[in-house]
Amino acid sequence: MLSTWRMSLVHLLFGRRLATEEDEGERVGPIAGVPILGLDALASASYGPEALLTVLIGLGTLATQYVPWITLLIVGLLGILYVSYRQTIAAYPSGGGAYSVAKENMGTNASLLAAAALAIDYVLNVAVAVSAGIGALVSAVPTLLSYTVELCLGVVALLTIVNLRGVRASGAAFAIPTYVFVASLFAVIAIGVARTVASGGAPVPVDPPHLATPHATTSLVSLWLLVHAFSSGCTAMTGVEAVSNGVPIFHPPAWVGARRTLTLIVGILVVLLLGVAFLSRAYGITATPPGTAQYESVLSQMVAAVVGRGPFYYVAIGSVVAVLCLSANTSFADFPRLCRIIAVDRFLPEMFVHRGRRLAYSFGILALATTSAVLLVVFEGITDHLIPLFAIGAFLAFTTSQAAMVAHWWRVRGPSWWRHLAVNALGAVATATTLIVIAISKLEDGAWISVVLVAGSILLFKRVRAHYDFVAHATAARDVTLDFRKSEPPIVVVPMLRWDAVTVKALRFAIGFSPEVMAVQVLTGDRDADDLTSRWRHLVVEPADRLGVPAPRLVVIHSRYRELLRTLVRFVRHVSSRHPDREIAVVVPQLVEPRWYQWLLHTPIASLLKTALLLRGGPQIVVINTPWYLDAWIPEQRRLAAPPMRGGLGDAAPT
Amino acid sequence: MLSTWRMSLVHLLFGRRLATEEDEGERVGPIAGVPILGLDALASASYGPEALLTVLIGLGTLATQYVPWITLLIVGLLGILYVSYRQTIAAYPSGGGAYSVAKENMGTNASLLAAAALAIDYVLNVAVAVSAGIGALVSAVPTLLSYTVELCLGVVALLTIVNLRGVRASGAAFAIPTYVFVASLFAVIAIGVARTVASGGAPVPVDPPHLATPHATTSLVSLWLLVHAFSSGCTAMTGVEAVSNGVPIFHPPAWVGARRTLTLIVGILVVLLLGVAFLSRAYGITATPPGTAQYESVLSQMVAAVVGRGPFYYVAIGSVVAVLCLSANTSFADFPRLCRIIAVDRFLPEMFVHRGRRLAYSFGILALATTSAVLLVVFEGITDHLIPLFAIGAFLAFTTSQAAMVAHWWRVRGPSWWRHLAVNALGAVATATTLIVIAISKLEDGAWISVVLVAGSILLFKRVRAHYDFVAHATAARDVTLDFRKSEPPIVVVPMLRWDAVTVKALRFAIGFSPEVMAVQVLTGDRDADDLTSRWRHLVVEPADRLGVPAPRLVVIHSRYRELLRTLVRFVRHVSSRHPDREIAVVVPQLVEPRWYQWLLHTPIASLLKTALLLRGGPQIVVINTPWYLDAWIPEQRRLAAPPMRGGLGDAAPT
Repeated sequence: MLSTWRMSLVHLLFGRRLATEEDEGERVGPIAGVPILGLDALASASYGPEALLTVLIGLGTLATQYVPWITLLIVGLLGILYVSYRQTIAAYPSGGGAYSVAKENMGTNASLLAAAALAIDYVLNVAVAVSAGIGALVSAVPTLLSYTVELCLGVVALLTIVNLRGVRASGAAFAIPTYVFVASLFAVIAIGVARTVASGGAPVPVDPPHLATPHATTSLVSLWLLVHAFSSGCTAMTGVEAVSNGVPIFHPPAWVGARRTLTLIVGILVVLLLGVAFLSRAYGITATPPGTAQYESVLSQMVAAVVGRGPFYYVAIGSVVAVLCLSANTSFADFPRLCRIIAVDRFLPEMFVHRGRRLAYSFGILALATTSAVLLVVFEGITDHLIPLFAIGAFLAFTTSQAAMVAHWWRVRGPSWWRHLAVNALGAVATATTLIVIAISKLEDGAWISVVLVAGSILLFKRVRAHYDFVAHATAARDVTLDFRKSEPPIVVVPMLRWDAVTVKALRFAIGFSPEVMAVQVLTGDRDADDLTSRWRHLVVEPADRLGVPAPRLVVIHSRYRELLRTLVRFVRHVSSRHPDREIAVVVPQLVEPRWYQWLLHTPIASLLKTALLLRGGPQIVVINTPWYLDAWIPEQRRLAAPPMRGGLGDAAPT
Repeated sequence: MLSTWRMSLVHLLFGRRLATEEDEGERVGPIAGVPILGLDALASASYGPEALLTVLIGLGTLATQYVPWITLLIVGLLGILYVSYRQTIAAYPSGGGAYSVAKENMGTNASLLAAAALAIDYVLNVAVAVSAGIGALVSAVPTLLSYTVELCLGVVALLTIVNLRGVRASGAAFAIPTYVFVASLFAVIAIGVARTVASGGAPVPVDPPHLATPHATTSLVSLWLLVHAFSSGCTAMTGVEAVSNGVPIFHPPAWVGARRTLTLIVGILVVLLLGVAFLSRAYGITATPPGTAQYESVLSQMVAAVVGRGPFYYVAIGSVVAVLCLSANTSFADFPRLCRIIAVDRFLPEMFVHRGRRLAYSFGILALATTSAVLLVVFEGITDHLIPLFAIGAFLAFTTSQAAMVAHWWRVRGPSWWRHLAVNALGAVATATTLIVIAISKLEDGAWISVVLVAGSILLFKRVRAHYDFVAHATAARDVTLDFRKSEPPIVVVPMLRWDAVTVKALRFAIGFSPEVMAVQVLTGDRDADDLTSRWRHLVVEPADRLGVPAPRLVVIHSRYRELLRTLVRFVRHVSSRHPDREIAVVVPQLVEPRWYQWLLHTPIASLLKTALLLRGGPQIVVINTPWYLDAWIPEQRRLAAPPMRGGLGDAAPT
């Protein structure tokens, strides 16, 4: 059953790691829901505690005294968030992404704030998950340590290629590593707790963790440091909102299944967080300086301390790496969809709206890959450096979403609405407070970057929308009916290099739709383009006179500065300004060669001229391009000798 | 007087380091002619002996026994070349470049051989001169040794930029370093010879040169090794042909001044070569392994041994570096001109014919910079590795030029023609023999690369010419007069996204020149482009009916695969195939935005469509592009409301 789920999100607007079946008939229950919607939340259990301990690295083993208390605070906050999101699930059974909930209840500005926070959250999720996954890998295989950044970029590249190809991950790809991850960490926690209890609180580690020597200033444990640690540890909560986005995938009544899934996910997460906190204290596990040769991830130390570096160790760490990389992959599914919905509302360029051939939003995928790769390179692939940015984005999204729910209850009312409002208000206040704490404590560590990015994104969204609105206004022709009154034919300009079939084809088209044709030859002296002045009478004027029709005029311009393009554009502008009420049609003859390398043999003068005219020709201009196909040269020549025509008299074939 | 010379070669076809004054009145004598036309020849005195000694590196100080004899052989060959080129100067007073002399006397194949040899010679001159210059620099400043390749590329980049800007080097820029170079090396040779004589043949070096420990196999001095050394040493002769290309710059009678200049150059070169050979024997100077930490150039060792590493040493080595870099610069002046003349004969793409804005042949400069940079990187910036390639190119050019002179005398006859023929025949045989010796002895060192490059270049030249000939044949319309018989108007296709001013402008142009217009709307479902079916009657059909003119037909296509471009191209091809005798004009509406970054906001659908139609539209197609300028939106809208027209009736302004 798992294998038939698809990662296609057509109905859901955005949100993390949601799988809508293309076949509406297949729905899931909580057990299947956990890997699909809970992967991100559970993955954060592996970098949250690590981030917390890394802040306390200076305290040495003393740190482990404080970890349980900070963890309890985080778990308490998680509880508030849990209760709040239970309400969102019930209120938005069709999926309550922060952008659409905010848009519906609080208007454009709030929804753009949510969009900016979510977009940054997705980008950082890729960076943090990939770098944490590689961090786990290099803990198990220390020789890879010096290739951290390269490995991170390799994973991003792989995810990009896979997603550009529009892969549809089956549920099994998520379920197996998720449950192996949960089961092995639960087993480690159970064994560790049992040993601790059995040994009276001082278990002997199988493989001793890195013992940090207390830092010089350890005696001074400031509250400031603990607040810092809390701020970093809060990243353990990221991903909790995903279930609220994915309600429709559950068996009806969907909100019941979704709530049960949320309960399961939060329950597992709480066990993992408390377990890690307990064992880090019992075994004296501290963080190691990231990016150095002594680095080993907290989870790796913990598993090794409890069960040793046997096969079980490698299974557990392998599942950690897999879960982290898969949680990065969910950003690749969700970020492009978020961008699409923003672009549909015209706050992002329309490229984000179009799907590629394989139904993937290629532009969004590339944007995500580029930005996360830049982050990984700038921050050298070390999770710890990215945590301050990540925590801001995630809590900004939480706060907006909860605040929008408060507005929702206020607007909608309904039975016992004030109780619902109170719960979401508690959630909003708690997450907002945390957000402020994080922002202040992490400001100089890089949180300001997130603030700048959010503000910059909102500004960008608004500028893009303003431009689209202006274009729509400027080009509006809502009820303008087409005007069929006869207008004067345009003045036609035909630039030509020499008298050949390519030029003749262009001239023929020109005389077909206007009696006022000027053939322009620019002589630069560089080429042996023969001046046509002497032959023009014979080639053009006499045949025209015989039929009594106006003949094209030859204009020969000598360019002292050998500037073909500029001279032609200047001539066209000159004609425009002398006839301000006329259209000027420039017929550009162009030789089209069948093979790409043959293009190297000819100056792309026709293409350059078309571009120059488009950009600098002015509003009277129309650019007409008559291609002449070298690989069809025999029919082209034949048409030259006997043109497609009906009726007509006078001189015929070439002489 | 020197400062007014310019490095512009308008009259001379190609050849090395020629300065034609733009002002015809200013001509030069031999003293000024040496730096202008002799720089390359003199510069080769610094890498020729070095290359010779490097081959003998395994012999240790024993090598210095053989150096004078090999040098005498090279000087003898130089004498033959001198006499031969004196004749070329007299026979071609307007400049006798190998390409044009060969073309005139021996036909296309010989001239292409000469062209290929010269082109490769110029490229290698850049690589060898730059790497020798940097070699001299790192000998003086050994800490720079590990940056050899980077320094070489830096010099090439600098030369490229300077030449792209079209700098005009004044004669002084060449004269000062050239004469400082000659004077300081002459002084060193004079002092060294005097000390040697005074000390009875065993002078005490001021700063002892690197003493090589004799190699294990030194006792076995094979003839093969000496032939190798001779082949390498022959690079000392490169650049001698330059005077023959530059005859017209001298005071009349020009050939007299040119001959005197050649005598001066060859005289100086002989003194330098013999002097270096003598001193390397007297002071026991041997080459040092290039590219290693022990490396020091032979000239650097020699100057240091004779006068010590005082200020004089730095002046002398500084002039060596300057002369070598300037001799690379002359390739930058001459290679693009060689390419131009080959391109004028249509053996190279026409890009090489056009001058850039600053009168420089940008394309040729970039081609030279790229190829020489590739050589420097592949051969790690070490002169010695490039010598085998260089010698082949130079002697191939010598041989072709001399052989062409033989053909010239045979053809022209004239007084005592057999004597002239014999002299050039001696030159041709001597250089051909040397060429064969070099080719055989250096074959596995890389000379085969030159052979492959020459053969490949000739093949390329011929293929390019064959293609141009075919294009000229296929597009010929020599005496085809313009046919003014009335032909049927084209069938017009107007692709449109929605009903806006951009589309209306395109439709208006379309109805102006054909009664058969189809407006095509492709609905992909991705966009909110509203289906116009219901409004078409009101917007288009009724206004047309009122005037009794044919109305454009609306074609709405639903694309299941969201492929806008492919669907449109397929539709156009479908129309073409149903009307094989009609022209199909596609009018592409395009919104033109004033700023480049605004282009990012719109899918470049119009540009992509134009390109797709050009490449895959087929011979019946004409592409018409009606730009709509956003920065002129008010006049554009006004024109929409009241079009430029004369006469006409029926419904007017927007409703």
